[in-house]
Amino acid sequence: MADATLTISSKNYSSWSLRGWLLCKMSGIDFAEAPVDPDDADNRQELLLLSPSVRVPRLEHGKIAVWDTLAIAEYLNETFPKAGLFPEDPVHRAHCRAISGEMHSGFHNLRSALPMNLKSRHAAFKVFSGARPDIERVKTIWQECLDTGSGPFLFGERPTVADAMYAPVCTRFRTYSVALDTTLQTYADHVLGWDLMREWTDAALAEPEAIVELEVEF
Amino acid sequence: MADATLTISSKNYSSWSLRGWLLCKMSGIDFAEAPVDPDDADNRQELLLLSPSVRVPRLEHGKIAVWDTLAIAEYLNETFPKAGLFPEDPVHRAHCRAISGEMHSGFHNLRSALPMNLKSRHAAFKVFSGARPDIERVKTIWQECLDTGSGPFLFGERPTVADAMYAPVCTRFRTYSVALDTTLQTYADHVLGWDLMREWTDAALAEPEAIVELEVEF
Repeated sequence: MADATLTISSKNYSSWSLRGWLLCKMSGIDFAEAPVDPDDADNRQELLLLSPSVRVPRLEHGKIAVWDTLAIAEYLNETFPKAGLFPEDPVHRAHCRAISGEMHSGFHNLRSALPMNLKSRHAAFKVFSGARPDIERVKTIWQECLDTGSGPFLFGERPTVADAMYAPVCTRFRTYSVALDTTLQTYADHVLGWDLMREWTDAALAEPEAIVELEVEF
Repeated sequence: MADATLTISSKNYSSWSLRGWLLCKMSGIDFAEAPVDPDDADNRQELLLLSPSVRVPRLEHGKIAVWDTLAIAEYLNETFPKAGLFPEDPVHRAHCRAISGEMHSGFHNLRSALPMNLKSRHAAFKVFSGARPDIERVKTIWQECLDTGSGPFLFGERPTVADAMYAPVCTRFRTYSVALDTTLQTYADHVLGWDLMREWTDAALAEPEAIVELEVEF
């Protein structure tokens, strides 16, 4: 029996589930996945951002119950300090937390206009004008990290919390054919090729398509 | 000269500035306030959530630059561990991070329908139906904390990051006359009477009213 349980939703649609799962995998915690039913009315409401509930992601580990992606990240970092979820250098660590926080609290237009959908590809997607400043801000954030560090991840050789936070954005840029310059495209491709991202994506592609209407409703 | 600088915006309107300021005060860091001009076009855009920029709150401390409220909280907690920004008990600490994360990433309807405005009082405010589930969720969060701990703050005798995160909500419930039962009203009143909240509120009430049209635009 695993030490911990991570409650997640659709692997194709739920970007927060992906983030929580990546963080758990990165931390090395021994966990089992507990999927909620994406067709359940309450879970659908949450996935569509129509409900303030926070069923996913949720981590249970012994007596600890922790939900919300950043709270899970900080809990895992505290519990598994050797996993290096945040950069070791204090300046980079503060920077990593800042841009992770930005993803966590912002980018609403990007999230609603370009929902995560790993099964989908749009070669000529017209991006809603409200989402364009969000896309530009993401590009700036990535560029500043990649200018400072040497890649291939935002803070160097190893993935950190920031890469987990922006990983769904990499999939969105692919799904909706958002053009990136070479440096940024190389970063996005590196994230998409990351072994954990391949594992998650394979599972998402194999997911039954019971909630195909989600894409229209978003 | 202070060790650190905290960039903030309007004390009357900017709930994120309030949270960042409370966290700095609670940590004991020696900091100076650097106000941005709320009438500046870029700062207005940000305050109205029309821009993805994150000028406030922003903390500069030696070589460290950290923005985003939760990132500031975690930075201060790491730098001043004795300040007790998070509860000492690991179960409570995870809970505190979870509900702080909920406030950070959610409650969009509550934020837009009931914007912080310390100078204003509405005796019979009609709450937009979309904001009501958010209000109910806040009540549940507070109730669960106050049932577990003994108050007067969410995790006991001392204020934690969670109280800083929900402090602007206490002001909103007062401004828009949101009815609370006795336990929750006692909590909200305790936060509003907290010496740091009195200090901030006094400064907010003294703020020149150059941006009165904000209330209409929200």
